[in-house]
Amino acid sequence: MYDRIKGFRDFYPAEMAARREATDVIESTARRYGFREIATPALERAEMWTDKSGDEIVEELYAFEDKGGRHVALTPELTPTVARMVVARGQELTKPIKWFSTRPFWRYEQVQQGRQREFYQTNVDIFGSAEPAADAEILGWAADALTGLGLTGDHFEFRISHRDVLGGLLESFDADVDVTAAIRAVDKSEKISRGAYLELLVDAGLDHDAAVEFADLVAAGELDDVVAAADSERVTDAVENLRAVLDAAAAVGAREYCTISLETARGLDYYTGVVFECFDSTGEVSRSIFGGGRYDDLIESVGGPPTPAVGVAPGHATLELLCRRAGVWPEEAIETDYYVLTVGDTRGEAARIARELRERGHVVETDVAGRSFGAQLEYADSINAETTVIVGERDLEAGQVTVKDMASGDQLQVAVEAFPGDHDRPTFETFAE
Amino acid sequence: MYDRIKGFRDFYPAEMAARREATDVIESTARRYGFREIATPALERAEMWTDKSGDEIVEELYAFEDKGGRHVALTPELTPTVARMVVARGQELTKPIKWFSTRPFWRYEQVQQGRQREFYQTNVDIFGSAEPAADAEILGWAADALTGLGLTGDHFEFRISHRDVLGGLLESFDADVDVTAAIRAVDKSEKISRGAYLELLVDAGLDHDAAVEFADLVAAGELDDVVAAADSERVTDAVENLRAVLDAAAAVGAREYCTISLETARGLDYYTGVVFECFDSTGEVSRSIFGGGRYDDLIESVGGPPTPAVGVAPGHATLELLCRRAGVWPEEAIETDYYVLTVGDTRGEAARIARELRERGHVVETDVAGRSFGAQLEYADSINAETTVIVGERDLEAGQVTVKDMASGDQLQVAVEAFPGDHDRPTFETFAE
Repeated sequence: MYDRIKGFRDFYPAEMAARREATDVIESTARRYGFREIATPALERAEMWTDKSGDEIVEELYAFEDKGGRHVALTPELTPTVARMVVARGQELTKPIKWFSTRPFWRYEQVQQGRQREFYQTNVDIFGSAEPAADAEILGWAADALTGLGLTGDHFEFRISHRDVLGGLLESFDADVDVTAAIRAVDKSEKISRGAYLELLVDAGLDHDAAVEFADLVAAGELDDVVAAADSERVTDAVENLRAVLDAAAAVGAREYCTISLETARGLDYYTGVVFECFDSTGEVSRSIFGGGRYDDLIESVGGPPTPAVGVAPGHATLELLCRRAGVWPEEAIETDYYVLTVGDTRGEAARIARELRERGHVVETDVAGRSFGAQLEYADSINAETTVIVGERDLEAGQVTVKDMASGDQLQVAVEAFPGDHDRPTFETFAE
Repeated sequence: MYDRIKGFRDFYPAEMAARREATDVIESTARRYGFREIATPALERAEMWTDKSGDEIVEELYAFEDKGGRHVALTPELTPTVARMVVARGQELTKPIKWFSTRPFWRYEQVQQGRQREFYQTNVDIFGSAEPAADAEILGWAADALTGLGLTGDHFEFRISHRDVLGGLLESFDADVDVTAAIRAVDKSEKISRGAYLELLVDAGLDHDAAVEFADLVAAGELDDVVAAADSERVTDAVENLRAVLDAAAAVGAREYCTISLETARGLDYYTGVVFECFDSTGEVSRSIFGGGRYDDLIESVGGPPTPAVGVAPGHATLELLCRRAGVWPEEAIETDYYVLTVGDTRGEAARIARELRERGHVVETDVAGRSFGAQLEYADSINAETTVIVGERDLEAGQVTVKDMASGDQLQVAVEAFPGDHDRPTFETFAE
C-alpha cells in the first residue's frame, strides 16, 4: 500500500461537504461582484520564479524538467500566470478586468496547522483601474465573503496601510536607506523583540535615533503625525490615497472592518500602494489569515503595458481555522433528501420514484447493493436521509408506499401515485396534516 | 515574457462560463444520485504507477524527485488515489461508497484536438457493491449527465459488453491463449485491417480458423450464439450478468442508450466485468468520448479487502467536442444582471443600489475606474449587462434613477427608493407596465 505524500490532504465526503459550502459562499460572492471565473495551468515555466533570484518562493518550488526538456514548476501562486494571461490578450480584453479562481497551489514548506504543501486559494483581482474604488471593491468583496461565511466584525479585522507611507517616511529620514529591507523589518516587527527590530532598521541604513523615531511613528499609526514628520509629497499622496480608499470602502460597507495599521507592510515586494491583511480580532489565530493589495508594476515587469492592479487571495486553510475558531465552519456531514428503500420485486417502481425525485433536483439514493430491509434502513440513517420512502411488495399491491421521517421515526402510508405526484418536495409532514 | 507550456490551457472568462455551466450539470447530476464529492492530491508516489511496469501510462508520467527525495508524480488518473483512500478508511466507511470529483490530471502525450497534457475529468465511482444495480446506476448517471447537457439518443450511444464474454470465449477456443493480448487486439480491431486484426489474434495464441470464428462471433454480437459457441460457465455467467445490468439500466431509464457491442473491451487491464464506452452516434467524433466499467480486483490489488467497484470518468475535452458537434455546448459569453452607472457625486447611492441587488443574489457591476458616462455604458455593453441603472446627480436630486434595458435601449425613470425596493429582480419591464 502506498502512503499519501506529506503535506498533501485527502478530503473525504463529510469534510468536503463543509469545504464545498464555504467555497460556494466565497465564489458566489465573487460572481455577484462581477468577478469572472478563469482556470489556469498547474504547471508553468520555472523561470517565471527562478529568474527573480533570492525569493523565498524559489526555495519552496516544486520544479523539474519535463520529458520535453522544459524547466517547469508546479505553480506556487497565481499572480505570474494571470499577468501572463493579461499580457497575452491585453488588447482584446475590456478593462477593468475582474477575475477570480479557486484552485490548489504547491510550495515545499514546513508542514504545520493551517499550512500544507498543497493549499487552496481563491484569487480575486482587478486589472486596469488605479482608482480607490477598485481597492475598495476588493475590500468589499473580502468583507462580504467573510460575513457570508457567518463571521462578523467581532471575529476579523482588515489592517490596512499604504506601501509609500513607510517608503516615503524612510526616505525622509535617509535617502539612501534600503527601503525593501526596512519594510521587511516592519513586517517582522510583531514577531521579534524591539531590540532586534531596531537592529534590522539600522542594518537597512537608518541611524539609531532615526530608527527609534521611525518605529514609534509606525507603532502609533497617526496619519497626521506621519505626514508632518515625513514632510514629503510621497507620504502626503500615500496618506491621501489611503484615506480615499477608506472612504470608498465606507460606500461599499467595508469600512467598519478596516483598522489603519502602518505595521502592515506585506512581505511581497511587488506591492505598490494600499496593502491590507486580514487578522483574527481575538488574536487566537496569530498569523495573518490572508493579505492583499495594489501591485501596479507587475504586468509591466513581465512585458505588458502599464496596468494598475489590485487583488487578494484568501487561503482556504487559514480561513477554515478562523471560521472554526469563531464556531461558524459548516457542519462536516453529508446530506440526503431521500432514500428510496426497495423490498421484494419493487425495483422498477422504486427506480421511478427515485428518478422523479431527482428530476426535482433532490439528492436521492436507492439500493444498489441488493440488501435487506434492515441493512437499507441502517444505510439510509448513515447518509443522514431526511425521508425514507419504503416501496414494499405488499404495500405496492395496495397502491401504497410508506413515507418515513428519519429524525422522528414517524411514518405513514400514501398513495404511490402521490409520490412525488404534484409535490415538489414531499415529506412525512406533507401528508401528516 | 514567459510562454504557456504546450498542452496546457488558459481558460478566459467566456470559455470558462460555458465550461462551468457544463461542469455544473455534470456535478449536480452526480449529487442528485447521492454521489459525494471528494478532493484528492495532485501529487502521489510515482511508484503507484512505475511499480506496474510496461504500462503506457508510465511513459507519459510527469514524475520527479521532490526536495525530500521522494519519487513523486503528477497524477495521470484518479483510480489509484481513490483505492488508497478506500483502503485507508475502509473500516469506517459505510458501503456502498459513492464518490465523485472533478479535477485536472496530467499525461505527457501527443497534443491533439480534444487531448491536452493537462485534462479535466469527472470521476464517478461506487465501491462495495457487486450488484448489477450498481453498474446500472453508473450508466444512469452518465445518461442523465449527457441528456442534462442537452444531448439525446441521436447524439450518443453506450457500447456495452462484459470482459468475461471475450475472455471466456477465447479460453473455450484455446486454454493457453494470451487473453490480455487478444482483448487488446479486439480493442484495436476497428482501427486496423481485418488481416492485421487476425494476425494479432494468432499472435495471442489462437490458430487461424479459431481466430476467424472468434472475430466473426464478436463482430456479430449475438449473445445466444456466443453462449452456444463457448459452451462455458464463465461465458454463460458473463452474458447473464450483462443482461441483468441492461435490465437494471432499463429501470433507471438508461437502457435506450445502450447497444451491446462485444468489440468494446476497454484498453485498461484492470476491468473485470461489464465495460462500456460512450461514442458519438454519428461517428463524427471517431474515438470514444469516455469509458467505464467494473474493476472488482483493484482495491485488493493495492492491499485492501476484496471490494467490488464500478465507475466512469468522462473527460471534459471529448465531452465538449461531442456537445459542440451536437450544437448544445453552452454559449461562451459572460452574463451580467445589472450595471449600476454613476455620474457625478452619486457613488454612495450607486453603491447602496449595487449592494442591495447583490444581496438578492444578482451579478452586479459598478464603476471602479472613475470613467465617463459613455465609457461606462460601453463597458456595461461589453459585459452583456441586461439592465443598466443610471444614477445621475440631477435625477437623484429629483429622487429618481433611470432604468435602461440594454437589449432594446428603452429606458424610464423610477423612484430611487423603488430600486430595488420590494422587487426581487427589477428590470425595465417591471416598471413599463
